[in-house]
Amino acid sequence: MTDFFADIAPLRHDPEGEGICFRHYDPDEMVMGKRMEDHLRFAVAYWHSFAWPGGDPFGGQTFQRPWFTDDMAGARLKAEAAFELFEILGVPFFCFHDADIRPEGASFAESRRNFEEIVDIFGQKMERSKVRLLWGTANMFSHRRFMSGAATNPDPDVFAWCAATVKTCMDATHKLKGQNYVLWGGREGYETLLNTDMGAELDHMGRFLSMVVDYKHKIGFEGTILIEPKPQEPTKHQYDYDVATVYGFLQRFGLEKEVKVNIEQGHAILAGHSFEHELALARELGVLGSIDMNRNDYQSGWDTDQFPNNVPEVALAYYEILRAGGFDTGGTNFDAKLRRQSLDAEDLVAAHAGAMDVCARGLKAAARMLEDDALEAPRRARYAGWETPEAQAMLGSDLDSIAARVEAEGINPEPRSGRQEILENVVNRYV
Amino acid sequence: MTDFFADIAPLRHDPEGEGICFRHYDPDEMVMGKRMEDHLRFAVAYWHSFAWPGGDPFGGQTFQRPWFTDDMAGARLKAEAAFELFEILGVPFFCFHDADIRPEGASFAESRRNFEEIVDIFGQKMERSKVRLLWGTANMFSHRRFMSGAATNPDPDVFAWCAATVKTCMDATHKLKGQNYVLWGGREGYETLLNTDMGAELDHMGRFLSMVVDYKHKIGFEGTILIEPKPQEPTKHQYDYDVATVYGFLQRFGLEKEVKVNIEQGHAILAGHSFEHELALARELGVLGSIDMNRNDYQSGWDTDQFPNNVPEVALAYYEILRAGGFDTGGTNFDAKLRRQSLDAEDLVAAHAGAMDVCARGLKAAARMLEDDALEAPRRARYAGWETPEAQAMLGSDLDSIAARVEAEGINPEPRSGRQEILENVVNRYV
Amino acid sequence: MTDFFADIAPLRHDPEGEGICFRHYDPDEMVMGKRMEDHLRFAVAYWHSFAWPGGDPFGGQTFQRPWFTDDMAGARLKAEAAFELFEILGVPFFCFHDADIRPEGASFAESRRNFEEIVDIFGQKMERSKVRLLWGTANMFSHRRFMSGAATNPDPDVFAWCAATVKTCMDATHKLKGQNYVLWGGREGYETLLNTDMGAELDHMGRFLSMVVDYKHKIGFEGTILIEPKPQEPTKHQYDYDVATVYGFLQRFGLEKEVKVNIEQGHAILAGHSFEHELALARELGVLGSIDMNRNDYQSGWDTDQFPNNVPEVALAYYEILRAGGFDTGGTNFDAKLRRQSLDAEDLVAAHAGAMDVCARGLKAAARMLEDDALEAPRRARYAGWETPEAQAMLGSDLDSIAARVEAEGINPEPRSGRQEILENVVNRYV
Amino acid sequence: MTDFFADIAPLRHDPEGEGICFRHYDPDEMVMGKRMEDHLRFAVAYWHSFAWPGGDPFGGQTFQRPWFTDDMAGARLKAEAAFELFEILGVPFFCFHDADIRPEGASFAESRRNFEEIVDIFGQKMERSKVRLLWGTANMFSHRRFMSGAATNPDPDVFAWCAATVKTCMDATHKLKGQNYVLWGGREGYETLLNTDMGAELDHMGRFLSMVVDYKHKIGFEGTILIEPKPQEPTKHQYDYDVATVYGFLQRFGLEKEVKVNIEQGHAILAGHSFEHELALARELGVLGSIDMNRNDYQSGWDTDQFPNNVPEVALAYYEILRAGGFDTGGTNFDAKLRRQSLDAEDLVAAHAGAMDVCARGLKAAARMLEDDALEAPRRARYAGWETPEAQAMLGSDLDSIAARVEAEGINPEPRSGRQEILENVVNRYV
Repeated sequence: MTDFFADIAPLRHDPEGEGICFRHYDPDEMVMGKRMEDHLRFAVAYWHSFAWPGGDPFGGQTFQRPWFTDDMAGARLKAEAAFELFEILGVPFFCFHDADIRPEGASFAESRRNFEEIVDIFGQKMERSKVRLLWGTANMFSHRRFMSGAATNPDPDVFAWCAATVKTCMDATHKLKGQNYVLWGGREGYETLLNTDMGAELDHMGRFLSMVVDYKHKIGFEGTILIEPKPQEPTKHQYDYDVATVYGFLQRFGLEKEVKVNIEQGHAILAGHSFEHELALARELGVLGSIDMNRNDYQSGWDTDQFPNNVPEVALAYYEILRAGGFDTGGTNFDAKLRRQSLDAEDLVAAHAGAMDVCARGLKAAARMLEDDALEAPRRARYAGWETPEAQAMLGSDLDSIAARVEAEGINPEPRSGRQEILENVVNRYV
Repeated sequence: MTDFFADIAPLRHDPEGEGICFRHYDPDEMVMGKRMEDHLRFAVAYWHSFAWPGGDPFGGQTFQRPWFTDDMAGARLKAEAAFELFEILGVPFFCFHDADIRPEGASFAESRRNFEEIVDIFGQKMERSKVRLLWGTANMFSHRRFMSGAATNPDPDVFAWCAATVKTCMDATHKLKGQNYVLWGGREGYETLLNTDMGAELDHMGRFLSMVVDYKHKIGFEGTILIEPKPQEPTKHQYDYDVATVYGFLQRFGLEKEVKVNIEQGHAILAGHSFEHELALARELGVLGSIDMNRNDYQSGWDTDQFPNNVPEVALAYYEILRAGGFDTGGTNFDAKLRRQSLDAEDLVAAHAGAMDVCARGLKAAARMLEDDALEAPRRARYAGWETPEAQAMLGSDLDSIAARVEAEGINPEPRSGRQEILENVVNRYV
Repeated sequence: MTDFFADIAPLRHDPEGEGICFRHYDPDEMVMGKRMEDHLRFAVAYWHSFAWPGGDPFGGQTFQRPWFTDDMAGARLKAEAAFELFEILGVPFFCFHDADIRPEGASFAESRRNFEEIVDIFGQKMERSKVRLLWGTANMFSHRRFMSGAATNPDPDVFAWCAATVKTCMDATHKLKGQNYVLWGGREGYETLLNTDMGAELDHMGRFLSMVVDYKHKIGFEGTILIEPKPQEPTKHQYDYDVATVYGFLQRFGLEKEVKVNIEQGHAILAGHSFEHELALARELGVLGSIDMNRNDYQSGWDTDQFPNNVPEVALAYYEILRAGGFDTGGTNFDAKLRRQSLDAEDLVAAHAGAMDVCARGLKAAARMLEDDALEAPRRARYAGWETPEAQAMLGSDLDSIAARVEAEGINPEPRSGRQEILENVVNRYV
Repeated sequence: MTDFFADIAPLRHDPEGEGICFRHYDPDEMVMGKRMEDHLRFAVAYWHSFAWPGGDPFGGQTFQRPWFTDDMAGARLKAEAAFELFEILGVPFFCFHDADIRPEGASFAESRRNFEEIVDIFGQKMERSKVRLLWGTANMFSHRRFMSGAATNPDPDVFAWCAATVKTCMDATHKLKGQNYVLWGGREGYETLLNTDMGAELDHMGRFLSMVVDYKHKIGFEGTILIEPKPQEPTKHQYDYDVATVYGFLQRFGLEKEVKVNIEQGHAILAGHSFEHELALARELGVLGSIDMNRNDYQSGWDTDQFPNNVPEVALAYYEILRAGGFDTGGTNFDAKLRRQSLDAEDLVAAHAGAMDVCARGLKAAARMLEDDALEAPRRARYAGWETPEAQAMLGSDLDSIAARVEAEGINPEPRSGRQEILENVVNRYV
């Protein structure tokens, strides 16, 4: 046991508590017939919370963690600390990349062995803990070998390296009974079209994803394969731009029934969308998988990965998720990093606790709106015209028949109020 | 004949000319074995050049045109002036919406009759002119009946109105031997998700487009059906966000072989993409149809629809088009409006002349880069590794076989320079 | 009396009410020792609520108001309806431009006479009402004569016209006992630097503002002169970009003691700032005057002028205002327009009611944070080092003395946590 | 001598040359009566070219330089390589931060000694070279001690450290006969207002700058003190947002005659301005000092620091500089970094060579426009009305006199075309 969190006891639910506690999050509270914990399915992200040193493009490391030693001893200590945080927070899940948990080796094989040793430690810890793996993933963007892409690299040896990496990470995810396997293609894109063969790169990316799906079936992994959209950064353009783009890509390679999306609030914003847009679209397209509940500053054009703090926004997000029937294998991952000035262990715990409370408030507000039919009743009323037999028949008709009817019947539609402000007021009664 | 352009003679090519003339655009100059005019296929947009009064959200009409009378006499005068501009510029094409060319009637039928009268005038004028119709389209966004959408309206009567409208406009386009028919869904989207049934709206939009394609075949129209992507404005979110989104939509409704895209530089920018990105992606997806060559100010978050003026950017756009083999039915439309302070007839002519010169310079630079293999040779070299039998075999392989090979062969790829700056220097030798 | 709001009774405070009422806003509730009404000082904006037809750049009028007749009868009817809304809402203030309230005449004199007639009607109505004028202002951006600027126009006759206009509007504001006079320079900027003499334009703008201040003193107007910053739109660049820019401009012309700012949330966002940033900066510079509490969609790059709906954001805004000691002559104006699909009188009332409730919740949360010293105690603690005599002495010292001390004392500062997430959690306990 | 640039000979001017050479930059070519070198005054930035490892927020080092050893031997080798690049390029200037050139020591004094040793090496090299120092500066943003600000830090010991650092760097700049001393306040701003005392921070920043100015005079440094504006990144908000903000700040502390600005194209863009706007504004305010000629991608919301490559844009920038009379102590610094995939020494040389050619083309085009009076004649014509005695008298008049005249004379101004497109065409004849 480390002493990193030495002064911090496991958090409890206490609506009137002082200090760090849950004022709103109560895992056992029933919401729409399900425990709150089972709705929200919170996960801690290993990378930001334990591997990120606090650097930014203009400054280096600010955090000083005893495990920042870049060796296996550090990796083991980091695993101890991570599971301590999971216990303090009482979260049901965590997530990790290969590179978060082990030091890089001199060869692929050495990196793999380092990785597997820590995965085994995780397995042992998970036997004694209720925490489970929400998803595993591979970091194929940090090392310089990936600078020109992973599966889309001009060098086929990098493609090979990535195939081997994903195989290794899928094996580990399967072994640890992960609920999902995620691919974020941080370098799958380009810096300049001038040196890029976009057609070949997209083909390679499609082929790679097909191999991933095949391997899932081969090993009997029953979790969900998820792609995480992001429009840009680190690249000038990333191929998995947003939900709609990923959906088109999946269809093109016949994978739209096999792969879903992990949607991050911050990435949605960087793509010019609201988070709820991306969630609603994924739901309508049948590919809503899981979420990364970390916000981006609306006015900073890079990935700020901040913990959520705005209840009204979070409520609208969970509203779309509840409309989809809630999470299946997915959950709420905090792909959020502390501000680099937030140096202390207490900051790390408090940031998660605050975020979990924000989500709990959002979920409860969303559930009440749905239970009250507060938004769905007016929505149905607005589209009620489409339920008539005439309207349905028109959808099976053709342009010239409809045109004839318009003139014959003198159709001249009169607009009706969209009532946006009234609906916004409705939401404000719940948040 | 009007006296609107009374003082302005048809423009000629004169590299050293003073006043308004073409210093670079020479329709008959051969570029890569084809006349420049046949490469560029310029079109004037009727709406901005003849129907737009110069308003913006904070101010009303600035232009004073003799045809702004909102009656049929004005519509006929406008047609005269328009064809005078086409002659002055010597452009081979024009484009129009129904609402640009006729006054709104009290009923659908009256509007249709007004429209058809002007279409007939166009037909007569086109017999005496070399100008042809690049594309026709319907304005289903300006009138208040479309405020909540056209094909995606909550009211099925608006869907019906739109079907009748598109039928009428397709008939006119077919009659005038238009090369394409365009759909821009300016109101196909939403202001707020709170009152929107996105799933139903997307279904209706898909069904509508299928009817359009069916009608094309029914009447024997041989032009191309084009969708024009735009991310937002006037709506908070427009469903045809960008090329990738439209492609996914087309696939979902089985229309990806039937419909292509009309890509606007300004809309690309508003979606967070470079113009050349959208062009290259459309080419790789097989849906590159036509372009609107009007720029957006990079730092104004609304649609500025400015005439192009940056040769290096325009060269990169035509480069992607030339790589696609050039236009088929498509062309270069200027969906550009004068700045609202540019009040005079001379401004309208000069703006087009300058834009045509910019495009001519861009095309010639692009052609030379392609003929010299200046960018393609380094691109091929960068991806040469993929041409080996081993690399191709890997693409037909699977994750575990590749992983085994990575460890067996000790694969450890070493990055190679992407040479971006050197390639940018190459481009600068041509522009 | 009109029948426009026929079915809508004056709103009352009812925390559990159904339909349109105030659930949170209670004018008489005491907050930090002052009535809530006297803190918030709400104003309705005449232009958006009564003069705007519902157009956008891609569509025309959607609203159908009986007073849209562009004559004096319409202007009188509009005034009736406006005062009915003020009564329904119980707001203490309204605001207007000259052009909102009267039809344009054929000459300056005719426009002035039209204006003065309506101003007199206002005066009569205000005698029978508790509503007062928060500010008057002149619309010097909509008419085509202002297309190239108002006080910054290349044509000195436009400068003259503007001087006459502002004089007329200041006279009316003074007559109606307005609390402030506002200048928003919607066309004081440029479309392109290529045709702009920025130095001359800034000089003219400075001279114009000096004349305004002189005239204020001449007529004995005791309200505050306010500039409303906005970065762009309608122009490519507006000179009054943001608070810092306006402050620099005021200093340059020696007016920083005479003129304050009216800060709009939406304009702050368009300038790349948070609203609270602009408020805090104005407070620190001593120029915080009044606010326009209408939000901009963070992801739409044009002025969306929406009613506020996010309580946490609004709380942070009022927090900065309370730290400044609250409003003096300023207040909370809703420079907000209904969405153009919100057609009904009910929408107009509900939008204001919801916004007033959002502001009431924000104000109360802000007041509690301040009363609890919840944010100020940690802020003081963070900067406590500066209160030592050594630190204060250093500020009066010089570089070389300090450098000598750094080496002599071996100063080597150790960073301390900025505790951002913990402070965000604190805020979430109040909102 | 290192072998880093072993294969690369000093570049020569050769308009038709192959490989890396100057096709446009010819130091001795006369432009408007001055040598091109003396107009452009190019500088290489030590940090990006020699100290930056190629990392980004999602990936680490890509560059492998023999001097990346973080010791004095590496620092000496780096200095060798740097001066080799200066010779190859034939640039007249370079720029550096303290942290670029020396390893961090365990104490302030050790860092200072490391620094001074390398400064002495520079001095020796400069005796044998024509290269001079354009400006020196201090890096007060990378080390963790600066994470919460430099002169604006909540901890006065950090202020002290910064004072000592700037003194040291000013001494070195003075010793090396630097032409300017630059301050970029990368951490002078905030992450969140919640923990920030903005008023105190601005006061400390003002006091610090006053000390810098005092020290300049004390040591007899005759160069210019420059502030480099940037709106954000690394901070959420940086106090030196843009030129207008800096000017207001300088006035507030009485420093507007003592300090000028170093304007970066990329920072202008991030602040929502065109580069030429910032240059023109600084010129009109009398604070135009120097430039960083590195572009930002318009669609990436972080600082991309790319070498310039767009001649038309660069021409407009030099046009504003030439209108200001050209540089005095300032120059053209390339605060530009290679793309992180551009690994090779050749990339570093070619990037600078291409950028220098782009600037040379831009300068020559700008000079021709000015010599031809191509833009100034129409500009003067547009504002000619202001040269009349009546117009000038009006500026000395008051609102009521002007208003009386407007009515008496029936003034009713008629707008005239702004001719923007025609002026854009004019520019395109030169670029």
